[in-house]
Amino acid sequence: MIFKTPTQYFLVSGTSDGYTPLNAFDGALLQAGIGNTNIIKMSSIVPPHCQLIAPVPLPPGALVPAAYAAITSDIPGEMISAGIAVALPEDENQNGLIMEYSAKGERRKIEEIVRNMAVEGMKLRGWPIKELKSICIEYKVKNVGAALAAVVLWG
Amino acid sequence: MIFKTPTQYFLVSGTSDGYTPLNAFDGALLQAGIGNTNIIKMSSIVPPHCQLIAPVPLPPGALVPAAYAAITSDIPGEMISAGIAVALPEDENQNGLIMEYSAKGERRKIEEIVRNMAVEGMKLRGWPIKELKSICIEYKVKNVGAALAAVVLWG
Amino acid sequence: MIFKTPTQYFLVSGTSDGYTPLNAFDGALLQAGIGNTNIIKMSSIVPPHCQLIAPVPLPPGALVPAAYAAITSDIPGEMISAGIAVALPEDENQNGLIMEYSAKGERRKIEEIVRNMAVEGMKLRGWPIKELKSICIEYKVKNVGAALAAVVLWG
Repeated sequence: MIFKTPTQYFLVSGTSDGYTPLNAFDGALLQAGIGNTNIIKMSSIVPPHCQLIAPVPLPPGALVPAAYAAITSDIPGEMISAGIAVALPEDENQNGLIMEYSAKGERRKIEEIVRNMAVEGMKLRGWPIKELKSICIEYKVKNVGAALAAVVLWG
Repeated sequence: MIFKTPTQYFLVSGTSDGYTPLNAFDGALLQAGIGNTNIIKMSSIVPPHCQLIAPVPLPPGALVPAAYAAITSDIPGEMISAGIAVALPEDENQNGLIMEYSAKGERRKIEEIVRNMAVEGMKLRGWPIKELKSICIEYKVKNVGAALAAVVLWG
Repeated sequence: MIFKTPTQYFLVSGTSDGYTPLNAFDGALLQAGIGNTNIIKMSSIVPPHCQLIAPVPLPPGALVPAAYAAITSDIPGEMISAGIAVALPEDENQNGLIMEYSAKGERRKIEEIVRNMAVEGMKLRGWPIKELKSICIEYKVKNVGAALAAVVLWG
């Protein structure tokens, strides 16, 4: 294998306004505790036997694989939400599935959709679900806002 | 170097309908045989001396670099296609080039364009082409559909 | 850690016309000297103690993490620009911040915006800036054009 397979993961979320959409995204990463790392986006699996841990401080500048949902908006007053869901299989030798979803709208609605997405993904694999976790955050934009939810792979 | 350079590669493709565009994309990855890995998108070179192999099962949750074309559509009945082309140079010490293209339309048209893209890319480098491979897949959307073609780096 | 943390970085830029937007992007990568590598996009930190070096030739096909701004346009005569800025902190044990910005318009304007973005990002962290570097390039599109500015992590 070219890369090592991660052995731990954790869930984080954040929101922010900013000078530009990228600044708002940067602020959301900072609030989520992963703003001083180099996030590499990937699609979107929890390896078998990967352990859920509480968020840990990451070394500054480290290259860190993550699956995330992010949304920015420059419409003042707009409500935006970003969520991720993790479905873990009953069979521990199989992998879990991460789904990401972000859109205009309230947290409750977005979180329901992203959880359904993970359920559908496991149904497609024919794998019974042991556990379904999710994290979702909403944000009312001041000028230029961002919302982010992420699964960070680590270990 | 931060990462090891891949020594093998293979071509895959897949299509699917799904509950959302991301679920359809997930289904296309599954059909392509790479749905239970963490795909890291990269642009888009076959290293010198990298060997073409038949698709192999990848360890679940592995971090895998890939170049891919993907398209989703929520227009029932629409035909979508995704293709990649790999141009290999006569000089084996030089690298090959991967091009990706996806759009509405039939496979034949999309595959012709992506092959031309790879030919043009090698022309820009001034490198004669020894071999031109491609893979392209079309899909008629039921409700929400996706088509995917990928070059997976491995080894 | 899954990946090693980079110890060197360099700044590059390039522009090109091409047969398609992806070909133009490929040409811009080639002009920037990184067209024969596998760029993995990341967001967007210079690790502490990472050394700025002059651009070096990269091994063909190597997997290389980079933060970049890129823009393509198929409007003949349109001026496009891509820039990145790197803000380094006074405290050498803290990381630097990379910002990316690309848009229609002249280099001078885009470079000013991206530098401001980096200043704002450091302000959000509460970190005084020791040094602010940037690279920005403009391009007048012939048929289908691209402009690219990148920070390549290495070492």
